[in-house]
Formats: sequence, C-alpha cells, structure tokens
Amino acid sequence: MKKFIDTADSLLDQSLSGFAKAHADIVQLSSQPRYIKRLTPAFPGKVALISGGGSGHEPLHSGFVGKGMLDAACPGQIFTSPTPDQMMAAAEAVESGGGVLFIVKNYAGDVMNFEIASEMVTCENETVLVSDDVSLPKSHSTGRRGVAGTLIVEKMLGAAAEQGADLAACKILGDRICQNTASIGVALTCCTTPALGKPTFELGENEMEMGVGIHGERGHDTQPLASAGEIVEQLADAINKELNPKPGQKALLHVNGFGATPLIELHLIYDLAACYWEQRGIEITRSLVGNYTTSLDMAGCSLTLTLLDDELTGLWDAPVHTAALRWGC
Amino acid sequence: MKKFIDTADSLLDQSLSGFAKAHADIVQLSSQPRYIKRLTPAFPGKVALISGGGSGHEPLHSGFVGKGMLDAACPGQIFTSPTPDQMMAAAEAVESGGGVLFIVKNYAGDVMNFEIASEMVTCENETVLVSDDVSLPKSHSTGRRGVAGTLIVEKMLGAAAEQGADLAACKILGDRICQNTASIGVALTCCTTPALGKPTFELGENEMEMGVGIHGERGHDTQPLASAGEIVEQLADAINKELNPKPGQKALLHVNGFGATPLIELHLIYDLAACYWEQRGIEITRSLVGNYTTSLDMAGCSLTLTLLDDELTGLWDAPVHTAALRWGC
Repeated sequence: MKKFIDTADSLLDQSLSGFAKAHADIVQLSSQPRYIKRLTPAFPGKVALISGGGSGHEPLHSGFVGKGMLDAACPGQIFTSPTPDQMMAAAEAVESGGGVLFIVKNYAGDVMNFEIASEMVTCENETVLVSDDVSLPKSHSTGRRGVAGTLIVEKMLGAAAEQGADLAACKILGDRICQNTASIGVALTCCTTPALGKPTFELGENEMEMGVGIHGERGHDTQPLASAGEIVEQLADAINKELNPKPGQKALLHVNGFGATPLIELHLIYDLAACYWEQRGIEITRSLVGNYTTSLDMAGCSLTLTLLDDELTGLWDAPVHTAALRWGC
Repeated sequence: MKKFIDTADSLLDQSLSGFAKAHADIVQLSSQPRYIKRLTPAFPGKVALISGGGSGHEPLHSGFVGKGMLDAACPGQIFTSPTPDQMMAAAEAVESGGGVLFIVKNYAGDVMNFEIASEMVTCENETVLVSDDVSLPKSHSTGRRGVAGTLIVEKMLGAAAEQGADLAACKILGDRICQNTASIGVALTCCTTPALGKPTFELGENEMEMGVGIHGERGHDTQPLASAGEIVEQLADAINKELNPKPGQKALLHVNGFGATPLIELHLIYDLAACYWEQRGIEITRSLVGNYTTSLDMAGCSLTLTLLDDELTGLWDAPVHTAALRWGC
C-alpha cells in the first residue's frame, strides 16, 4: 500500500485537522464528536442542512460546508457511517430555528444512523434520501446507492435554504432534484483502504468494472477495457434510459473522477458525453468536471445528469462559498 | 495502460475541446494553432499574461486563464513544449496595448520556444522564468526546474496586471515572487504517458522517489517508503534551507497533488507541514491544497512555500475567475 499516512488509525483525524486549518476562513472542526460546521452562522430561521457519511470521498461532504451549501457535515471513519451522536451534536450546533434537513446517501448504515438521529433530535427535521446510481435496478433489495448526484442535491438545496425556503419546501425540492438526477460510474482500478492495505477487488490489466459504487464494491459487470467513446456511450445510455430527456431539455452534466483520474482524461470524457446528449437534442447548459465524489485512490469516473428548469438552474448558479465549490461570493 | 482515451494522438484535442465546453463562460479555444484565451477581453493597456508548456499538468496552465490571472495559455503535446507560432498567435489575440509578459517554467524546450516567440512578436514583452524546484542545486547545468510555484507567480502577477501595474513593474514583481518561492516533490508511483504506454521509471512497492519533477523524470534519490511525518520533514527541511524564513515571517503554504493522490492524504500532508513551520515560528496565513500542477496519473505531492508581505498577500487575495481558482468574483 502506497499512501501518505502515519498510521491507518490516525489518518482521519490528521486529515480533518489539515482540512480545517487550510479552510479556517470557511469551516470549524469539532473533534469530539466529529463534525465540520460553517464558520459564519446562518441567519435566524434558516433551514440547517446537514449531510455526512463515511470518509474517503473527499471533498464530499466536508468540502461542501459553507454559505450557500451545507451547514454541517459528519464524517465517519473510512467507508463507515458516522454515528447518531455526531449528527445530533451537529444539529444542535447549527440549528437556528428553521429545523434541520438531513441529506443522506442511500446506504444501510447511513440510513439507520441518520434515522436514529432524526428521532432523537429535539428540533423539527426532514430527510432527503439520495439514490441516483442507476447501475442497480430500482427494485434492488436495499434500493439504489447515493453517489455523485449528492453534491448537486446539496448545492441546490443549499441555495434554496439560503434564499429562505422553509423545511417543507426544502424537502419537496430535494425529492424533486433527486427524481431529475441519475448517475453511473466505471472503474479502471480498485481503491485500497488503509485498514485492509490492498485493493478490495482485483481487475486485470485489460479489464474495467462497470457500474461501481464508491466504496470499493464490485459493479454489475467486469468488461474488457474499451475506448473512452465506447465507455461514455454505455454510461450515457444507462442514464438516458432512466431520465428519458426530450429534445430541447436543458441539463447539467457532471463528470466526476474517483480520486486518481487526472483532469486531462475527465475533460475528454466531458467532451464525449456532451456530444452524446447534444446529438440527441439535449442542451447542456451547466457543467461540473473534477474529482468531487471520490473513492480514495480509485481510478475511474462517473457521469451524472440533472434535468434543469429555470428554478433549478437559478439554484445551481446562486452564490456558494465552500472549500470545494465557490462562486458568486 | 489504463486510461480514458480513444487514441494517444487525439487525447489532447479531445480534452481541450471538453475543457473549453465545460468552461465556455470563462475561456475560448483556438485550435489552429492551439491556445486558450480569456473570454472577456482585458481593459485597454493591461499587461497581457501568457504562459504555457507541455500538457499533462492540468489544471496548469489552461485552468488558470481568466480575469485576475492569465490572459492566455499555450498547451503543447504531453510533456512537450508548445511552439512559437502558438505563443505568437496568443500574443496577437490578447495583447491590448500594455505589452506581453511571458511566464515560463524553466525547461530547455519551453525556454527556447518562448525565447523565439519573444523575439518574433512585434509588441513589447518581458519574460519571468520560474525555477522553484529546490531538489536540484542552484548550480545545476540547466538551472532548477519550474514546478508548482508557477501557479503562485501566475496568480499574484495576474492580480497586479489587473490592478494596472505596467510591464516593467510586472517583470520586477514576478522575479521577486520567484525569489520568495520554493518547492520540492516526492512520488509514490511514476506516471504513464499515453504514447509510451508504461511508467517512465519503476518504483518498488516499498520505495518512493524524492525530488521528482513533473515529467516522469527520476528525482535525486530513491528511498524506502517512509511515514507521512518523515516525508514532510524531509521536504520542508529542503525548502527551509533555501528560503531560511525567520520567526514571525508570514507565508503561503501550497500542498500540491500530482494527479492521483486523493484529498484525504493531501490534507494530512498539509496538517504536518503547517505544524512544521508553526513550530519554527512561521505564520501560515494563506493556503492552497489540491491537485493543481499534476504529472498525469502520478501519485505523489509537492510542498511549496512563498514568503509573504502585505503586497503579496493582497495580490493572492485579489479576485480571480478561472476554471481552477475562483474567488472574490
């Protein structure tokens, strides 16, 4: 295992400490229990947005804490759900009279722990469950996983809350963004968790894994390594089948790297994916390209498409001031 | 070789096309000859800043084109200098009466080609040569290489030019930033160029390469893989020996990933490096952490320290609106 670490046990706390120091103008770290909150308090009555999940997906979620996006994020251990005490402490720290909206990626551990927190916090709260990964059928026993579409949900809801939307409106909006968002990913290499010290599955030199999640789990299919054009066609077909956009539809296209895929390749993927939808009459009016929802040191990428209307476009464009996304502020 | 590509020959043009599409609100691409220029023209009389170099280091330099930073960037083929016709076309496109400042990383090919362009363009021009890599002695035959410190030079000069500094002032300022900036890097894996199809050098499972450049060249020393703490100590010692900062000195600390190192590790490195200097009385007042000056898919990182005064701090903080750095706009 080749990583910059001192010990597997200390990685998370050292990394969070560095993150908080490097972005001390935006966030504040609580160590016991662990959460990151925005430095500048929200206005009284604003709905507080709280997300979280296992670590290893940076900048998700801590990198999205700040004005116009999340009020707090709860990082669990690597690929491990945070615990209810983290969420409750975060809620207490950032709730300002408008209630709490939990944004949860659909994984059994996250769902269970956020449910417990939801029942135990004393303030009014709602939950938006993100399950944008179309590599699994809708009928899958635990439902579809939440992947890179989560940041789009967090960005748009963050803007709505900043503009004064109340808890009920945020919940309805969040569910609507989820319904208009679909993602799917492919891996060229697997990731190595510090605790295990070796890749969680093996891929041959001429193989790729289609439909992977973000926790080093296998996808639905191991395939021969294909050209970028063939890969994008397969990914985009799966998204298109789900969302079924009509010609003239506006959309946001997000090409996400899994942590070890360089920008030169992600921009090539973006070019091919944009062409795919433009050829079908879809207008790609907003874009995001980079390593945002990662899986430690996995090489690979995912495509996410969100169908836009004027409201969602406005929420995407609204000012945001976080470590990983910043514009208009 | 596991990459998202169609063919090695088409990679650069496809990637530039995707980059320009994804950031069509900031940049414009010229394909023949290849350069990226800012979409919104600068005010008349502004010094035009032009950089460039081999591709494979994204987001450097194209990702730094926009208001408050570069006016144009000239991308060569992978790890290959751009040619004078690119620089001359870029100069003609963005020169607006204040002359051109070329910002050049110290590599033989880049230096030669920019020198030819400098002689052939009809407008007044100056060159700032960046050679921040302290892994080589100052007496090295071709001088020290330009690495991750380049973006700091580009950011601060971009702010100065935007504030109306003239060509002579920009040249003096650029040289001063260079003198106050030092970098050094370490690799855990080597990178694979698409043309070669395999790593340009081999590293054992328990080895790291100290003092690497950003073109897949070997460093000064192959060492046993060490803990992050030991690695940071060695890197920071080399920078400290060069810049010799005194207690009370303010500084900008930049932790740069080489393309395949995830943020969770870079933030841990930042934590250790910030501690190193704080223990010596240096105040880390500005920071930047992420994959900014990359070497394709190399796993590794570099540290860069720039000694700050009020003027340089102000130039760093000034508004910037590019694909890869954006604040205050």
